[in-house]
Amino acid sequence: MGIYLDRIKKPNDIKKIHKEHFEELAEEIREYLVNTVSETGGHLASSLGAVELTMALHLCMDLPNDKIIWDVGHQAYVHKILTGRKDKMKSLRKLGGISGFPSEEESRCDAFSTGHATTSLAVAAGYARARDILKENYKIAAVIGDGSFSGGMGFEALNNLGQYKNSNTVVIFNDNNMSISKNVGGIAGYLERMRTSSAYIEFKGGIERTLNKTAPGAKAADGLRKTKNFIRDLMTPGEFFKEMGFGYFGPIDGHNLKDLVRTIKAAQTYKGTAIVHIYTKKGKGYEPAEKNPSKFHGIEPFDVATGRIKNPVRGKSYTAVFGETMLELAEKDDKLCAITAAMSSGTGLDAFAEKYPERFFDVGIAEEYAVTFAGGLAAGGMHPVVAVYSTFLQRSYDQILHDVCLTGKKVIFAVDRAGIVGNDGKTHQGIYDISYLGNIPGLTVVSPKDGRELVAVLEFAADFNGPIAVRYPRGKAYESGFDMAPIEYGKAELIAGGKDMGIIAVGSAFEAASVAALRLESEADLSVSLFNARFVSPVDTRMLDAMLECRHELIVTVEEGIKSGGFGQKVESYLLEKGYKGAFLNISLPDIYLEHGDADELRKKYGLDADGIYDKIFACAKEKISFLRREEKADEGKA
Amino acid sequence: MGIYLDRIKKPNDIKKIHKEHFEELAEEIREYLVNTVSETGGHLASSLGAVELTMALHLCMDLPNDKIIWDVGHQAYVHKILTGRKDKMKSLRKLGGISGFPSEEESRCDAFSTGHATTSLAVAAGYARARDILKENYKIAAVIGDGSFSGGMGFEALNNLGQYKNSNTVVIFNDNNMSISKNVGGIAGYLERMRTSSAYIEFKGGIERTLNKTAPGAKAADGLRKTKNFIRDLMTPGEFFKEMGFGYFGPIDGHNLKDLVRTIKAAQTYKGTAIVHIYTKKGKGYEPAEKNPSKFHGIEPFDVATGRIKNPVRGKSYTAVFGETMLELAEKDDKLCAITAAMSSGTGLDAFAEKYPERFFDVGIAEEYAVTFAGGLAAGGMHPVVAVYSTFLQRSYDQILHDVCLTGKKVIFAVDRAGIVGNDGKTHQGIYDISYLGNIPGLTVVSPKDGRELVAVLEFAADFNGPIAVRYPRGKAYESGFDMAPIEYGKAELIAGGKDMGIIAVGSAFEAASVAALRLESEADLSVSLFNARFVSPVDTRMLDAMLECRHELIVTVEEGIKSGGFGQKVESYLLEKGYKGAFLNISLPDIYLEHGDADELRKKYGLDADGIYDKIFACAKEKISFLRREEKADEGKA
Repeated sequence: MGIYLDRIKKPNDIKKIHKEHFEELAEEIREYLVNTVSETGGHLASSLGAVELTMALHLCMDLPNDKIIWDVGHQAYVHKILTGRKDKMKSLRKLGGISGFPSEEESRCDAFSTGHATTSLAVAAGYARARDILKENYKIAAVIGDGSFSGGMGFEALNNLGQYKNSNTVVIFNDNNMSISKNVGGIAGYLERMRTSSAYIEFKGGIERTLNKTAPGAKAADGLRKTKNFIRDLMTPGEFFKEMGFGYFGPIDGHNLKDLVRTIKAAQTYKGTAIVHIYTKKGKGYEPAEKNPSKFHGIEPFDVATGRIKNPVRGKSYTAVFGETMLELAEKDDKLCAITAAMSSGTGLDAFAEKYPERFFDVGIAEEYAVTFAGGLAAGGMHPVVAVYSTFLQRSYDQILHDVCLTGKKVIFAVDRAGIVGNDGKTHQGIYDISYLGNIPGLTVVSPKDGRELVAVLEFAADFNGPIAVRYPRGKAYESGFDMAPIEYGKAELIAGGKDMGIIAVGSAFEAASVAALRLESEADLSVSLFNARFVSPVDTRMLDAMLECRHELIVTVEEGIKSGGFGQKVESYLLEKGYKGAFLNISLPDIYLEHGDADELRKKYGLDADGIYDKIFACAKEKISFLRREEKADEGKA
Repeated sequence: MGIYLDRIKKPNDIKKIHKEHFEELAEEIREYLVNTVSETGGHLASSLGAVELTMALHLCMDLPNDKIIWDVGHQAYVHKILTGRKDKMKSLRKLGGISGFPSEEESRCDAFSTGHATTSLAVAAGYARARDILKENYKIAAVIGDGSFSGGMGFEALNNLGQYKNSNTVVIFNDNNMSISKNVGGIAGYLERMRTSSAYIEFKGGIERTLNKTAPGAKAADGLRKTKNFIRDLMTPGEFFKEMGFGYFGPIDGHNLKDLVRTIKAAQTYKGTAIVHIYTKKGKGYEPAEKNPSKFHGIEPFDVATGRIKNPVRGKSYTAVFGETMLELAEKDDKLCAITAAMSSGTGLDAFAEKYPERFFDVGIAEEYAVTFAGGLAAGGMHPVVAVYSTFLQRSYDQILHDVCLTGKKVIFAVDRAGIVGNDGKTHQGIYDISYLGNIPGLTVVSPKDGRELVAVLEFAADFNGPIAVRYPRGKAYESGFDMAPIEYGKAELIAGGKDMGIIAVGSAFEAASVAALRLESEADLSVSLFNARFVSPVDTRMLDAMLECRHELIVTVEEGIKSGGFGQKVESYLLEKGYKGAFLNISLPDIYLEHGDADELRKKYGLDADGIYDKIFACAKEKISFLRREEKADEGKA
């Protein structure tokens, strides 16, 4: 299996394959992709749609000297296969394996590490200016999907790219009429009209005929002839791009390799930025993915024959809990509305969208707009809920601060995928939001410990008169089994009182921390206070005062976020200023970009699983807690 | 002076003035604006350009029921004058006075608090949806300048606004061919062509004539007649807007009140979003501002007759120090390049732009793009310096993290206006960057104590192989007079050693802290260690270890930023974990949105001037430092 694909061992090897075998090669690549991702899970549909495009780029460029810059990067699997990483694809997204996104660390052929949307044009602009200034001589191709085009930074880049008239950069505009969800907005409409308007095509033909037939001397046609080129410019598809100062090539069929190569080569000779507009089909060549590209955008291991997920997660995900709660809240409050940035399904809002279409807003990949729009909705008296993954909400830092929190607007941020996300890795971890959200003045940040508490917290948030972020992790909702105290503003939840030491766990870290606490009681004979922090911001100082009063000898915070600027540091700050003299253990993630891998493996590696937490606390307790110190000394005496 | 203006005491009073006096009213408003701002300082040129526009909006709307949403908001002075705040204009931007930007707190006529660019369309979209869902019935007008249009969020908003076909929103596109600096990019070019292309206008006339003259029955013209409307749509200026799904009105003269009122009223009847395209002149009616709109964008108190600044700051500003150092660095390093987001002059890069045009990039108001573009430049081997004010760099949080720091790219962030900025107030304070930049993994953050150190730090940064942010305040560069230790990575600067207590001051807080330290030595007889933190991130733990070794009884951090997530909290975290048992004082700003006012007055109010710092430390020392405690007890004994 894969007689042509097997010949591709390193970058540029594709050029050794005779062109009459390209079709078979494409087929082999698709088969390999489907088989591999069916085992590993990953982003399938976009890569299937980009097989011919990637082949064409590799045929027209010399890697790693030339630079291919992918947008988001989930469509780069074929690129990885063609640059000597085929055999590593089996380790895709696993701890120690290769990344699901372009990675500069991984290969010199990956010109820019990425994972978020709408960056490729800006990166290409940077590369192009660097190349020109340093008088280097390589080719640059940036690939951007039509979905990414709704992001403002793409427009910012277009606005800048147009002005360099003598510097070649090729932009592949990969138009598959999809982001993860269906596209929305004016640009999507414009592209749709371009795709389908037979009236337009007829018109184009009509005016060409008119111009050709009108007798040259006829007075009436004078105005027309003079401006023939001007009309042509406006009439061909792509006047939007041309107005911005680009060369426009296409639209062409993005699955026709011959056309692709010819057009890209032509675009490479253009002085300035050349847009190559291609139409592709997301999921191309694998029927289940063609039929349901959203499902196969990012997918768990599946059965190739049927397209069914092999081991569907049993039990409800946090996302599902959120989605269901939104339905309940919307029924009670007709001002409640929901905003997603091209992630209706990912954030669990499909049912809401169906039931309350008037109150549902998919704004496209436009997280900045999503938040300021919510600010406007709130100013107008609505109760908006902005549902965006932790990692993508980074895009909205300024808008959260400036357009929502500065005036204390009633906006709920539903921050999904908060904490370790696992296989998507570095670019997608939700381990920074405690630091970037938790330090925004006036923003309340809540982190429920389990699914049931998520419901209660969302109900609390719906009644809360100010900005509030509710953060919850990826995956199956944990149910703690503990009784749940009602949600009170700024108040942590006491799970168990103890006298020797206190543990405060934040959200997703609660499960492991509670297991560790029980073991500390049963195995180390420690009397442990266990708190569910619940509120990341503000920190519950009454809880801390109570701990100070108990004269705990050790206080521990546990959170699934980086240490810097995190919850633990705020607790430490308070305790130190209050004169706490005991020991403190801040269990959190180091200040790094956490690699990809199974989330539980990562927790284990970074000591955030129950064993890791237990071991760290026990080691510290042995050293710091007086009666344990005495016991140890006694033991030493005996020995 | 001001017979018509004096009649305007509250919102909608303008409607009581007879229209034949509007011209005089406009003149009075301009005179009042110039006179007031000549005393208070502030944003003059934009408001002068928006006199007729504001009058027209007030004539076409009913305030505060209808909503006018300003972009940035520096052009809203006339709006304030017309909504009953004329007499308060004398307190403009002063502590306790009225804000220089629209403020929901200040007036119900200010529909949305703002200060950053490119938010108005998103806000208007939110208001419009809220109005429709809640079945309310007010008018909405968003005002956006052509400068703000380079910001991506504007495009994100346009992309979304076009789809609501039955919901009226008026967007005033205020085209003055300026942001603060001259505009750049494809859109600016497009608008320029629209403004000036006589060929275009001729063509338009030509085709209209052609269409009218061609005999209806003539076969050759068939294609044309059928598509007459289609051509019209494309040929009128504004096809860009129309393609996005908007009604387009204009372009019209934005200083012709009659045309404005008529066009806005027409736009208000449009089903959907109506763009009213107006041409205005920044600085209109005051010659010095017309001639030099950049200078009069934001200006200090000036002489009305000459336009000269009354009390020009003597001595070099930090901005100037940065600008000069950039010239020196660029001479030594031909890979060094500079990026500004429409703030060439504000960031001190005018000379650089002139001397190294190839290596200078003004990307327009597009802070997101600026940073990712820098990532691309760095990937291509250049050494980019991104010069953006602290408050505007908030827009780039994700790009700094995802496109620069994740891969450790060599990018310098020159963070001007870090700390209290003063009169611009809430929306512009640079008091959050220690928290948002200081907690980004892999980003080094440096805060020099004075102008000379800024030079040294920039030289250090130029040689540093990774992302680094250099933050420095607004205003005149302080020169400390202390000897300066060479810059070493991660190392604080010891200014004076002492045994009782330690003070660590960050950047702009150093001057006041050092004065306080000297007074503590001379007046309170304390032996004080004084450190210049220099590195905000990473925190110099060797400095802290040394303090622990000295057994200081009190350690103090002083910084001009919010407490939450700040430098002090990181110091506290380290000390607590190392078992520090002494007292700690974290002198910083509270976690709030700091109001406007003179920067020194604000420092005084929040205890960050030398007296405030001294008082806080002395009060704490009296309570916590043993020999002072003993003295106090002895004093009490005597009394």
